[in-house]
Amino acid sequence: MTKDVSRLDLFIDRMVSQRACLDFAISETADMTGPVFELGLGNGRTYHHMKTHIKGRDTYVFERAVASHPDSTPPDEMLILGDVRETLPASVERFGAAASLIHADLGGHNREKNDVFARFVSPLIEPLLAPGGLMVSSDRMYFETLTELPLPLGAVEGRCFVYRR
Amino acid sequence: MTKDVSRLDLFIDRMVSQRACLDFAISETADMTGPVFELGLGNGRTYHHMKTHIKGRDTYVFERAVASHPDSTPPDEMLILGDVRETLPASVERFGAAASLIHADLGGHNREKNDVFARFVSPLIEPLLAPGGLMVSSDRMYFETLTELPLPLGAVEGRCFVYRR
Ligand SMILES: C[S@@+](CC[C@H](N)C(=O)[O-])C[C@H]1O[C@@H](n2cnc3c(N)ncnc32)[C@H](O)[C@@H]1O
Ligand code: NI
Ligand code: NI
Repeated sequence: MTKDVSRLDLFIDRMVSQRACLDFAISETADMTGPVFELGLGNGRTYHHMKTHIKGRDTYVFERAVASHPDSTPPDEMLILGDVRETLPASVERFGAAASLIHADLGGHNREKNDVFARFVSPLIEPLLAPGGLMVSSDRMYFETLTELPLPLGAVEGRCFVYRR
Repeated sequence: MTKDVSRLDLFIDRMVSQRACLDFAISETADMTGPVFELGLGNGRTYHHMKTHIKGRDTYVFERAVASHPDSTPPDEMLILGDVRETLPASVERFGAAASLIHADLGGHNREKNDVFARFVSPLIEPLLAPGGLMVSSDRMYFETLTELPLPLGAVEGRCFVYRR
């Protein structure tokens, strides 16, 4: 077996890291009551994981076009439909700095594009997080007031990022 | 953290099991020269993994409609386009019992449908495998002459299956 990393290897590392970071962030914020935000529903696997493990907090999903597995589709009233570049600023007015946990997995295949997008949405996400709240992302974010935390056990360096306000 | 299993957990188990079974089957058949068959291309992640680790053997891909990542798209001459219910029987004429390794990940969300399909395609796959060749599947298969092998380390029971001729 060669040491070459396949797309399957990278994908597994990303999924495993997402889960490790989410589990860590869910447990760290377990005493908070503010809503949880899922940015990017996709297939709905991380949303399903969050719904399975987060009790007593509302989970809102930000998505442009819902295409998730039926098991993992949020009810209409928990869906914030549209481009996050517009729905995030609108949510600051609606929620204020209230979110206990924000998870973002908005990226596609192109690393450079993902980075440009992460720079653009970082200042839109930052004002939504409550003091003590955590932010988990598949891309490196560019926050002014949040602190990057060391990754939890099981997460792979560079495959996910955790920030605290 | 509750003990409830999420769709993310199941998905990670499936991906990790596929990789463990593929790595095992690739190394077990390393001395064979017969072609490798990938049944179901999908996003192309397992195909990419096989191409990364298999040297000196042709890899043919059976797929109805190619929708893979550009990095993981087979060249035209290695693509066997069409419904496997037709292309597998045609391949018996073309290749005979020559395949050193066959990987199948043809299932969708519906477990019952997957099982019906697995029963249907098992006898179409069986005559393509060379003596000593291995078959790896995400669904339980129904072979008459192949032997089910114990899963390799790292694979999760029920998430993948390995058979030897
Ligand atoms: C990689 S998927 C998320 C996968 C998800 N974490 C899962 O486990 O299934 C990314 C999602 O983000 C959404 N998305 C990307 N850019 C967006 C934007 N600007 N506004 C809203 N949604 C966006 C896409 O439509 C896609 O569904
Ligand atoms: Ni290897
Ligand atoms: Ni748990």
